[in-house]
Amino acid sequence: MNTSRPIAVLGGTGPEGFGLALRWAQAGETVIIGSRDAQRAQDAAEKIKQRVGASAKISGSENIAACSATDLLVLTIPFEGHAALLKQLKPAIRPGSIVIDATVPLAASVGGRATRTLGVWQGSAAQQTAELVPKGVSVVAAFQNLGAELLNADGPVDCDVIVCSDDPNAGQVVRSLATKIPGVRAIDGGKLENARILEQITALLIGLNIRHKGHSGIRITGLPQAAYDVM
Amino acid sequence: MNTSRPIAVLGGTGPEGFGLALRWAQAGETVIIGSRDAQRAQDAAEKIKQRVGASAKISGSENIAACSATDLLVLTIPFEGHAALLKQLKPAIRPGSIVIDATVPLAASVGGRATRTLGVWQGSAAQQTAELVPKGVSVVAAFQNLGAELLNADGPVDCDVIVCSDDPNAGQVVRSLATKIPGVRAIDGGKLENARILEQITALLIGLNIRHKGHSGIRITGLPQAAYDVM
Repeated sequence: MNTSRPIAVLGGTGPEGFGLALRWAQAGETVIIGSRDAQRAQDAAEKIKQRVGASAKISGSENIAACSATDLLVLTIPFEGHAALLKQLKPAIRPGSIVIDATVPLAASVGGRATRTLGVWQGSAAQQTAELVPKGVSVVAAFQNLGAELLNADGPVDCDVIVCSDDPNAGQVVRSLATKIPGVRAIDGGKLENARILEQITALLIGLNIRHKGHSGIRITGLPQAAYDVM
Repeated sequence: MNTSRPIAVLGGTGPEGFGLALRWAQAGETVIIGSRDAQRAQDAAEKIKQRVGASAKISGSENIAACSATDLLVLTIPFEGHAALLKQLKPAIRPGSIVIDATVPLAASVGGRATRTLGVWQGSAAQQTAELVPKGVSVVAAFQNLGAELLNADGPVDCDVIVCSDDPNAGQVVRSLATKIPGVRAIDGGKLENARILEQITALLIGLNIRHKGHSGIRITGLPQAAYDVM
C-alpha cells in the first residue's frame, strides 16, 4: 500500500535526501525532490528515474514549490541552512502537514568536527523545527542514523529507524514510510525530545566510520516483535 | 587467558555491578565486589559463588578496601553517589590504575525520569570521573548500554559494548574484559569525550524498555570484522 500523498524531500540533492528519495521511488512512492535550484532538483530526479526505471514517480522542483505540493515533508538539509530554510518555507507549509526532520546539528556546520554535535537551545534540531513550523503541523524526528552511503547502495540496509514525535499518528505514518526501505525496522522512540539522542548517535556512527572504515548503523536488540509492528 | 589482575566492582551490590561481577566470575576472573557495607558486599559475593560454583574467585569488601586491593576498578554506582565516592576513593586509587566508568547521569538521580539525562559540566559522568581521579590513572567509559536484566539472566547477551578512552592501552584492556561476557562484541568508540553519547543511549534504551516492555540493547552494524578484534 502506498503512502496516499507525495513525499517532498527538501534538500534532496544532498546524499542523504537523494538516498531516501531513491529508496521511496523504488518502493513506488510519489517523490518530489526539493532544492534551492530547481534545475539541480530536476537533474537529481532524472538520475533516480534512470536508476529506478521510467515508471518511477519522481520529479524535482524548487524547495518552496515542492513544499506547497504536498503535506508530507522531509528535511535533509545541513544544519547551517536548517533554520533559514524553515523560515522561508513557513508560509508554504500546509496546516496538518507532517514535517520529518533528519537533520543532525554536527559541529561541522560551524567548521568543527562531524564527530561532535552542537548544543541546540531547544534540545535538538528537530525540536528547533517544532518551534519554527506553523501551529498544527506535526514534527517527527527520524532517519538521522541511516547513512547516505547505505541508502545509495543497492540491497537492504542493516539498520533500525527510531521515530520520535509528540504526535502518535504522525509517528505511525513515518514508521510506515521507514519500513518501505528494505531491511529497516521502525521503532517508536517516544516523544520528540528524544531526538537529541538520535542526533548524537549519528555523530558516534560517523566517528566509528572514520575509525573503523565502515558504514555503520544501529540495530536495537531485546524488544518483542510487537515493537516493530506498524499498525 | 585471564585478566592478570583482580577486578574491583565498586557499587557491585546494585543490579548492574552484580551482573558484571557475575559474568566475570563465570569467565574465571578474580572479582572483588565493593560496597559501602562490607557485609552486603560479602553477601553478594556469596550469592554469585552459589550461582557460579565453589571455584568462583569472588569476594566482597568495603569500597575503599576493594579499591586498594587492585588497579582495575569498575564504577557501577548511581550518579547521585558518583562524585562523593570518587573523592573518598581518591587516596586509595593506585597510580597506573584503570577506572572503568559505567555510570549514567540519569535525571532519576535528582528525582526526575530515568529516560532523561542530566547535563554534566564536563560533558559526561565519565569525564567527571577523569577530573576526580589522581594523575596517571586512566578512565575508560564502557558498559552503560548493557542492561542489568540481561547481565543477570542466563545465556549470551545480544549487545555490543562501545569503549571510549583517551588511553588506547586501557581501552584495549577493557575491550578484552567486555568480550568475556558471552555475546558481547567490543568496539573502540574513540576518545573519552564520546562517553556523553553512550550515557544518553542508555536513557533512550530505558525509554524503549518501558514503552515496548523489553530489555533492549544495541548492536552496531556495517563495520568490518577488524573493528571487533581485540588484539
